[in-house]
Amino acid sequence: MTTHHKDAATSIDKRVGALFKAAPSVLTPYSQLMKAASAGGALDGRTKELMAFSISIAIRCEDCIIFHLRAALSHGAGREEIVEAISVAIEMGGGPSVVYGGRALEALEGLS
Amino acid sequence: MTTHHKDAATSIDKRVGALFKAAPSVLTPYSQLMKAASAGGALDGRTKELMAFSISIAIRCEDCIIFHLRAALSHGAGREEIVEAISVAIEMGGGPSVVYGGRALEALEGLS
Amino acid sequence: MTTHHKDAATSIDKRVGALFKAAPSVLTPYSQLMKAASAGGALDGRTKELMAFSISIAIRCEDCIIFHLRAALSHGAGREEIVEAISVAIEMGGGPSVVYGGRALEALEGLS
Amino acid sequence: MTTHHKDAATSIDKRVGALFKAAPSVLTPYSQLMKAASAGGALDGRTKELMAFSISIAIRCEDCIIFHLRAALSHGAGREEIVEAISVAIEMGGGPSVVYGGRALEALEGLS
Amino acid sequence: MTTHHKDAATSIDKRVGALFKAAPSVLTPYSQLMKAASAGGALDGRTKELMAFSISIAIRCEDCIIFHLRAALSHGAGREEIVEAISVAIEMGGGPSVVYGGRALEALEGLS
Amino acid sequence: MTTHHKDAATSIDKRVGALFKAAPSVLTPYSQLMKAASAGGALDGRTKELMAFSISIAIRCEDCIIFHLRAALSHGAGREEIVEAISVAIEMGGGPSVVYGGRALEALEGLS
Repeated sequence: MTTHHKDAATSIDKRVGALFKAAPSVLTPYSQLMKAASAGGALDGRTKELMAFSISIAIRCEDCIIFHLRAALSHGAGREEIVEAISVAIEMGGGPSVVYGGRALEALEGLS
Repeated sequence: MTTHHKDAATSIDKRVGALFKAAPSVLTPYSQLMKAASAGGALDGRTKELMAFSISIAIRCEDCIIFHLRAALSHGAGREEIVEAISVAIEMGGGPSVVYGGRALEALEGLS
Repeated sequence: MTTHHKDAATSIDKRVGALFKAAPSVLTPYSQLMKAASAGGALDGRTKELMAFSISIAIRCEDCIIFHLRAALSHGAGREEIVEAISVAIEMGGGPSVVYGGRALEALEGLS
Repeated sequence: MTTHHKDAATSIDKRVGALFKAAPSVLTPYSQLMKAASAGGALDGRTKELMAFSISIAIRCEDCIIFHLRAALSHGAGREEIVEAISVAIEMGGGPSVVYGGRALEALEGLS
Repeated sequence: MTTHHKDAATSIDKRVGALFKAAPSVLTPYSQLMKAASAGGALDGRTKELMAFSISIAIRCEDCIIFHLRAALSHGAGREEIVEAISVAIEMGGGPSVVYGGRALEALEGLS
Repeated sequence: MTTHHKDAATSIDKRVGALFKAAPSVLTPYSQLMKAASAGGALDGRTKELMAFSISIAIRCEDCIIFHLRAALSHGAGREEIVEAISVAIEMGGGPSVVYGGRALEALEGLS
């Protein structure tokens, strides 16, 4: 399992890296936007990554789930926080967020 | 094909089961909500599962398609009803519902 | 209330009528598609309009809610069936479907 | 402005209240789910309401924005936290989240 | 009609302007991203605004429709091009894009 | 890589073909709608396929990305045009369009 999700994360990085090279005039400001939006401020960086992770589940974007889950983990997010972010997504997304929440929990095992 | 879609359904069950164990305070009421929403009433259970299946195609949620298609089949839904539920999704979702409707039809062969 | 929702339905008809005149080569086949998708078959016309209504709530499209609710009513759909179609949307859409379901119920009063 | 957004919040409550009465078997477990998902745990209640607010912007649900913004405010969320939750939504939603984020900021003035 | 849509466009500008002031670290790079993405290159600026307009219909974002329609018009887009961009959205979005396409066509009258 | 994306395109064709056979009364008008919406007019066919491709990224529909990318290529779309259509999607879709844009760029290598 671990291998599968870590490989998925690596593939995302590779694809986004290639896109960055192809469209630097758009990806450079996007990367600044992302940095600014996820930097610690009134809300800390961990909370913001959990927020992006929760949005990812609600909108059913599997690559986004892996990307922001990995970022949340690297900010020290714990299992309980992750499960609670999944729960908020379910409140906002119903059944589809249950199945994507299940995928997110599986990714948590894979990335830990 | 059969094996592939049945395995997918089993994986969904396993992931949702794990999520249930991780977040019972949220999944227990969700499961009650799902039971109440899909129980036979003025509309029968088969119709309601076909409705959830049609929504699944319109919102492009592949796990949801498999989950609610299986439920519709277990309520005795026939091929024609399933194809007509796909057709309503196409009316409401255009081209993306055509490609997901194609996946849904393939899943029908796989789950039958 | 009644006036508000009936006016909204009339405005939708007027706008779609104008679009039909502007793009007949696209709207003519769409209208045939809609007719075919919503015609009674293995599922009857009322069920199909309730299905389209339920999708409308799940995807948060207010004009679609009014359009398909009116069609369901014209096929003789009753209050209980409408409430149950809202319930399936909530199962599939969580909180956003609760608020749009509330709007749908209000529209039911307005269009009845 | 204040009046407009407070009225909008009151209308949401009234519509959801009517839906609750029409479909108690579905709304009762939904309300339990919402309570469990938004209760303080590893993440506190304020953070969770800001998360639901951020999802609301990303998915373009105006009633949801008002509902969860009001809840975040009642948990003591400050202006900076709200602006940062909007920022995460923009990271995840691009231009549409900019325009809905603008609406959210306007609602903040209206509800404060 | 004219007044209504021009006022709507002004309100969008005012709200986004306020958001810009509240979150300059996120809105500044977003604005650079938007400028880079919509600048003439292999595709000209008019085509790109029509593309953003078409996406706006497909995702049912009314403020986005007004924003990008105005931009397309300021790049000299003609009525036929606008109607064809609506048509592509219908191909990709089905019924909901028909009703939002109708709104877009009405906005065209209002903004012209 | 090439093989993977070409196989994916073939699978889409096969699934949609099967759906066409199962629901000709809906797929026939859809196919006419698609033909009319994508035919050259005020906008040429290549531009329209790039528009549909851009929508596909913004709505995160992977099969749609492959389908419309292939069509754009068959209309002679060049790499720069494709990258710019991805860029417009990012303007309209934020982070999720970045990851799906990365997938689209990878598909471009695979289909070329």
